[in-house]
Amino acid sequence: MAAPPAIPAARFGERLEAAQGRVAERGLAALLVGVGPDLRYLTGYRAMPLERLTMLVVPRTGPYRLVVPRLERTPAGRSPAGEAGLVEIVAWDETDDAHALVASFVNATAADGASPARVAVSDTLWALHVLRLQAELPNAVMELGSTVTSDLRIVKDEAEIAFLRAAAEAADRVIGQIAAGRLIGRTEHDVAIEVRDRLIAEGHDDADFAIVASGPNSASTHHEASDRVIAAGEPIVLDIGGPLGGYCSDITRMVWVTGGNPANGPDAEFRRIFDLVRDAASEATSAARPGVAAERVDAVARGIIEAGGYGERFIHRTGHGIGLEGHEEPYVVAGNPTPLRAGMAFSIEPGIYLDGRYGVRLEDIVVCTADGPVALNRAPLDLLVVDG
Amino acid sequence: MAAPPAIPAARFGERLEAAQGRVAERGLAALLVGVGPDLRYLTGYRAMPLERLTMLVVPRTGPYRLVVPRLERTPAGRSPAGEAGLVEIVAWDETDDAHALVASFVNATAADGASPARVAVSDTLWALHVLRLQAELPNAVMELGSTVTSDLRIVKDEAEIAFLRAAAEAADRVIGQIAAGRLIGRTEHDVAIEVRDRLIAEGHDDADFAIVASGPNSASTHHEASDRVIAAGEPIVLDIGGPLGGYCSDITRMVWVTGGNPANGPDAEFRRIFDLVRDAASEATSAARPGVAAERVDAVARGIIEAGGYGERFIHRTGHGIGLEGHEEPYVVAGNPTPLRAGMAFSIEPGIYLDGRYGVRLEDIVVCTADGPVALNRAPLDLLVVDG
Repeated sequence: MAAPPAIPAARFGERLEAAQGRVAERGLAALLVGVGPDLRYLTGYRAMPLERLTMLVVPRTGPYRLVVPRLERTPAGRSPAGEAGLVEIVAWDETDDAHALVASFVNATAADGASPARVAVSDTLWALHVLRLQAELPNAVMELGSTVTSDLRIVKDEAEIAFLRAAAEAADRVIGQIAAGRLIGRTEHDVAIEVRDRLIAEGHDDADFAIVASGPNSASTHHEASDRVIAAGEPIVLDIGGPLGGYCSDITRMVWVTGGNPANGPDAEFRRIFDLVRDAASEATSAARPGVAAERVDAVARGIIEAGGYGERFIHRTGHGIGLEGHEEPYVVAGNPTPLRAGMAFSIEPGIYLDGRYGVRLEDIVVCTADGPVALNRAPLDLLVVDG
Repeated sequence: MAAPPAIPAARFGERLEAAQGRVAERGLAALLVGVGPDLRYLTGYRAMPLERLTMLVVPRTGPYRLVVPRLERTPAGRSPAGEAGLVEIVAWDETDDAHALVASFVNATAADGASPARVAVSDTLWALHVLRLQAELPNAVMELGSTVTSDLRIVKDEAEIAFLRAAAEAADRVIGQIAAGRLIGRTEHDVAIEVRDRLIAEGHDDADFAIVASGPNSASTHHEASDRVIAAGEPIVLDIGGPLGGYCSDITRMVWVTGGNPANGPDAEFRRIFDLVRDAASEATSAARPGVAAERVDAVARGIIEAGGYGERFIHRTGHGIGLEGHEEPYVVAGNPTPLRAGMAFSIEPGIYLDGRYGVRLEDIVVCTADGPVALNRAPLDLLVVDG
């Protein structure tokens, strides 16, 4: 379980160049990237989003600048792009107007002295910064940075897939560890803490979420974890994940705890919906080949569950892209005609939810390759019937 | 270390009412609050910020609505404000236009059918949602939600201070545990993992940051943790924290590891800058009384360090407010004339950084009360000289 090799610095140079190419191509004055996944993608720089402005300026021509609060100069300089000299680090002081500084770099892109017409800002930039930049650039029309970065980020290279695979396999191990341990008599919250500890122990940078939904809570799609005590004769949804080397895991498996008494096993309807969800997951995964529309993959999963009579109970999309963000493009949802391409990575996670009784969801991370779909998770999709 | 009692549901009703009062008073059509600290403050609802829109609409008159993706309906309904029936939960489906839905509620506030002129959006709302809402409300001028919420959130009530105190005391214990353990021969990263585990074990919801900066790294203000191995005869900055019951801890203490050999103790200049920083912290804390301007508290800390000859090496503000966010108002910084009021909580964290050699920072969370300043951290500000 050695960590995959770091993304080479040269890759960040290529990414910055590709982003600048798209800025020019789209007729934008500049791309303005705040702290978040686009910044990590383009520079490797990880920072917490804060009220102090940190912003990469990718103008349509000329040097890339990383504007940072003075006290972030050292870590910014040590980021992959900083260390490789790909970006010029511009530090501002506590009493400077950082937004005006960024605006000055944008205005400098207008060779004729006219105000720039269009600027893109990263999708997760806080309103705090968006509105201040709008005030400093009153004539600029803003659009989302994903118009520039999404097409770049949506196709993962080998180094990125290595991280996604390492994250998936680490999450697989945690599922195995949790299913093998004691569950009955513990609160969901207590199990969730164990999940988080184990994700970190298995190399995750962070444990973003640990959904432990037992008994009737399993019918709630985004239940997190409560003080409910797990009892024999119940299903548990385990939906867990977080970043490893920046790239996210996200796996869902179903456990059923019997307390060692086979009479406490799943009933016939639970078995029926479980099998439907598993079939939907398997078939949707098989359908995820280059050229197939994302919405088609959703339709495959949905069709199976509808044919089984539970269409109304599959109340969410089939999946979401995954990479530096837990949820990113491509979304596997009705209405998204994006054709899948080799290198795209996404979840396949159908579910059926019977309010007040129980629910089933299964989730793998799948990569579309030229040779067909590859599930990064290796844990079997079976119902994990355990003593608990 | 029992957790403090939960914020009573009635408090959320009062907060919503106060927010609506300010919306009307400021002549706004509505306050639009995305996932984040303002939403937690007004409703108690905690969710992860996602591409799917979750938004509280506080119109100038009429009912409060919490617009959520359908699959979040159950957890939203279980939030304190949801459970108490204070907000109407409006669920949208995967193929609905959630931003248009929110815009329709805003437009409904314009009694005369005219477009509403001004709308406030929460400061941490993503650009993704800001720009879409601007597109749906083309005639609305947007301003920051903090113009409505900051004045409410800036003064903490007793229940909130109880959480801040519990978080501070938990972080105190972790500092003590780390200083008492083995440090020499371990990487900063390894110690940071232990810090995170211990913060969680001491009741934190999450361990947002664990700065472990040893030797020359201590001179970098926002160094996180690296593969550098800690050696005898070095200082370590421990700057750690995260939320407990939603309210944040943030403490900085200095450790010096000797390896058991007194000859490896701190040198004279380190002692000198340590004493200056400690004096600056103590005096700034003493100055933090009702009616004193926030910038005055900064000036007190800065004055002491300047008088000691290290003014140029104190390269950041003295502190930041703290509550549901790790950094929030009031900022203890030059240029902020806000007079302190009883109930305000903030960090006092002066520092001196000698590039390439070492640095010192000390940080307490302080509450301004009618009877004077109260440090919530109880760990002494002393230099922790340990064998390591």
